[in-house]
Amino acid sequence: MTMSENTYTLAELAQRFGLQASGDPQTRVDGVCSLLPGRAGALSFLSNPRYRAQLAQTQASIVIVKPGDAAELRGAGLIAADPYLAYARVAALFDPEREFAPGISANAAVAQDAQLGEGCYVGPAAVIEAGATLGAGVYVGPGCVIGRDARIGAGTRLVAQAHVGARVQLGERCLVQPGAVIGARGFGNALGPKGWEAVPQLGSVRIGNDVEIGAGTCIDRGTIEDTVIEDGVRLDNLIQIAHNCRIGAHTAIAACTGIAGSTVIGRRCMIGGAVGINGHIEISDDVILLAGAMVTNSIKERGAYGSAPPLEPAQDWRKTVARLRRLGRMDERLRVVESQLREAQGNKSNDDPDSF
Amino acid sequence: MTMSENTYTLAELAQRFGLQASGDPQTRVDGVCSLLPGRAGALSFLSNPRYRAQLAQTQASIVIVKPGDAAELRGAGLIAADPYLAYARVAALFDPEREFAPGISANAAVAQDAQLGEGCYVGPAAVIEAGATLGAGVYVGPGCVIGRDARIGAGTRLVAQAHVGARVQLGERCLVQPGAVIGARGFGNALGPKGWEAVPQLGSVRIGNDVEIGAGTCIDRGTIEDTVIEDGVRLDNLIQIAHNCRIGAHTAIAACTGIAGSTVIGRRCMIGGAVGINGHIEISDDVILLAGAMVTNSIKERGAYGSAPPLEPAQDWRKTVARLRRLGRMDERLRVVESQLREAQGNKSNDDPDSF
Amino acid sequence: MTMSENTYTLAELAQRFGLQASGDPQTRVDGVCSLLPGRAGALSFLSNPRYRAQLAQTQASIVIVKPGDAAELRGAGLIAADPYLAYARVAALFDPEREFAPGISANAAVAQDAQLGEGCYVGPAAVIEAGATLGAGVYVGPGCVIGRDARIGAGTRLVAQAHVGARVQLGERCLVQPGAVIGARGFGNALGPKGWEAVPQLGSVRIGNDVEIGAGTCIDRGTIEDTVIEDGVRLDNLIQIAHNCRIGAHTAIAACTGIAGSTVIGRRCMIGGAVGINGHIEISDDVILLAGAMVTNSIKERGAYGSAPPLEPAQDWRKTVARLRRLGRMDERLRVVESQLREAQGNKSNDDPDSF
Repeated sequence: MTMSENTYTLAELAQRFGLQASGDPQTRVDGVCSLLPGRAGALSFLSNPRYRAQLAQTQASIVIVKPGDAAELRGAGLIAADPYLAYARVAALFDPEREFAPGISANAAVAQDAQLGEGCYVGPAAVIEAGATLGAGVYVGPGCVIGRDARIGAGTRLVAQAHVGARVQLGERCLVQPGAVIGARGFGNALGPKGWEAVPQLGSVRIGNDVEIGAGTCIDRGTIEDTVIEDGVRLDNLIQIAHNCRIGAHTAIAACTGIAGSTVIGRRCMIGGAVGINGHIEISDDVILLAGAMVTNSIKERGAYGSAPPLEPAQDWRKTVARLRRLGRMDERLRVVESQLREAQGNKSNDDPDSF
Repeated sequence: MTMSENTYTLAELAQRFGLQASGDPQTRVDGVCSLLPGRAGALSFLSNPRYRAQLAQTQASIVIVKPGDAAELRGAGLIAADPYLAYARVAALFDPEREFAPGISANAAVAQDAQLGEGCYVGPAAVIEAGATLGAGVYVGPGCVIGRDARIGAGTRLVAQAHVGARVQLGERCLVQPGAVIGARGFGNALGPKGWEAVPQLGSVRIGNDVEIGAGTCIDRGTIEDTVIEDGVRLDNLIQIAHNCRIGAHTAIAACTGIAGSTVIGRRCMIGGAVGINGHIEISDDVILLAGAMVTNSIKERGAYGSAPPLEPAQDWRKTVARLRRLGRMDERLRVVESQLREAQGNKSNDDPDSF
Repeated sequence: MTMSENTYTLAELAQRFGLQASGDPQTRVDGVCSLLPGRAGALSFLSNPRYRAQLAQTQASIVIVKPGDAAELRGAGLIAADPYLAYARVAALFDPEREFAPGISANAAVAQDAQLGEGCYVGPAAVIEAGATLGAGVYVGPGCVIGRDARIGAGTRLVAQAHVGARVQLGERCLVQPGAVIGARGFGNALGPKGWEAVPQLGSVRIGNDVEIGAGTCIDRGTIEDTVIEDGVRLDNLIQIAHNCRIGAHTAIAACTGIAGSTVIGRRCMIGGAVGINGHIEISDDVILLAGAMVTNSIKERGAYGSAPPLEPAQDWRKTVARLRRLGRMDERLRVVESQLREAQGNKSNDDPDSF
């Protein structure tokens, strides 16, 4: 439940977002709320028809609904083809973090030859190394590190404590959450006579426009060429994207997913949480991977895929584990039974030719 | 093996912790040790009866034991109903990190209107933004960032480089490890005509008292309401807790676990490592989830649950994978066999009515 | 595709790395490239014989090949028994990050009694606490925190924003990526009458020489003794290593893997990504764990092991899940069939004694 200093009337919101209004145009809201219980003076939305009955109970002053649900409104409403999307846009008015005062904090460390566009902010304890270039209106939150010769597009926001490695390129209007690490060394090692030797990772990371990178998410630099994240990709927290990967535009990946090196993922994929994806494979456009899936081979056709086994009470699960170990034995037993039956039928046939 | 400048006699320890002593009251210890080999001048404990024979071999000067094991002591001992718990309390005497000198480091950046209680410490390169409020004795280690209007309860310790986002509330006596990110934007996106659009995450995170949050663990802010972590919850490292979740009091979660959005977890649950939990589900109180479990549906009854398949040598595992793919075929073959048998018995019955 | 200010001739490279040259000794390169399309003025390598045909097409000026592939070279080449290893060494010449100017940044915070060897670098916003000791040529990147009494061996590089906790020991020539947390409190808690009580983690972390630690990777301090990472270990990103573990020399672990407490892993193991390993178990030397494996028991023999189930289209996967739940029923049905067949054969035997 959020309140803001800004308030808006139904009429203002309808006009600003091109939506049809229903009810008193002077209805005023100062923030957003859940549909239930709702809050007088706040705005909510109804997207899932399953919750339609809540329209009669909510205390929200304005609710965004689909055209088909408008008749159920008790108070004021806004009519939108996609209420969730309309809500997203309206709610942004109440986001206290959308504005900042430009400037460079006293104890930021900005290299003399770094280039900052107009209206940038650099927070305390942030570091911008030599040769880095920032577009207009870039927000570099406290504790961020921008490496040598990195390039960050206009309007991108690094919330705090993020790492942008040397030569990494970030597009415009990106959002990078705390603890994200973009451009660490890829995990390339060659076995020498005395142990592993590091294979230099001389590529970088190239990130498109409008990309979101979650907290603690790591995107490694490429070995020779760049690791590439295309426009509009959304990455949740604690994701690993290894060197030389390419993630197609508008693909969304949920938390705790790991993608091994040199894998290419298509456009508009939706990858559930805790998914593991092997290296050196390709995944088509529009693939959906269910949470917990483990992907070992390329996927050539769009569609949904999964592999996580079912959850069971521990004692049943232990039996399932034992049965999985005996699957081969079970297959064998079935084969024996089949062959006995064939034999029996054969014998029977011999005994009784009329059965044919 | 740890040594400290503090030393304590058996008699002092017995009195301070209300435990019965056995042996020379002047026996003195300056730290702790493992039971084997143990170290003269140090304290250890015996909890698991399987290791009882080690009491005869240990060089530890004092051992904490259960009443039933007291007779086996060769040297001095302390008698406790729960030796591990008693050990935890005694060992805290030797923890070099339990005390700190209050003060604000020269290159910390503390906003003018931030409010700090008595006896706080703010380390170098730490940042406290406008409107933040810290209770008495809060430790803000080097490189931490405390966002606007965040509130941190008395006695809470942020070890280093942790992130506490805007408006986040942390209770008293919490412990936050390096790299933890509390209050990053929840992963809410709506599909617009040109790609994903961010759904503002206007809720925050509310964390109770006595909560531990591990290194690299992420707890996202709620969409409208707050994400909530109740009192006494223990979170290990690299855990993801998505927006709008609620974790019940005293639940403990091991590392690498991910919990998707809007899921509610009960009290006193024990969740093993690398567990994946779906969004929008409920898990009862006192549920145990075995390591590697993938939870897709609500769990309504207390008890232990698992789903991870068995580990096998790779060549056997490949066969198991192939058999899993053929499970449907196997089922079909079994059905054929059953129907043949039914038919055979039917025939036989017809042939030999006496068999009934 | 990388270019550098340094250029080298074929003759210089052959001499420096002890390799046999083929072609014009004055062939000059200024960086590295992929084999296809390759780049004039750059060096590449051919390791996998499957790509041998690319030697005819590459625009690379120098290619490192195996002796058996030398005849296929169209331009200049270097002959190496292991072209990938030779490439790793040559490519290091073009790594822009291999050199740095020593010095302590103005807004680093270095405790007065910290000891720094010759030629160290301490970046902006880095913090070195009391009693810490750094060998010669240590690089402490921006935003790193080195805790009290930590010891870091000569030539080790902490890229940025890494955490080295109190009393942690790091060997020589280690590489620590951004966001790594070495020496957070181990996850030890004892259940008291009012909830969990922290078990002090009084051990530390000891890390050998030539160890790489990936971005966001966490290695917790031991409870009483130290957590130990032996020489030459390679850890990828977002790995969890819990308290009291020991990782044997030259073992390599891929991203998103979690290892629970007190587990001992042998030497030269190769552990695939997203692997989960239970606590208090032992894994032999030279074990390979396939990606996504879940290890619950000790592994006593070298070899490869796996456990991840196969990926399937979602509708097939749902059937597999249902069949897994019915595996016990299937086993039962098979048993019934077997017993019916035995009975049938028994009857038949009675009917027809000659069948023996």
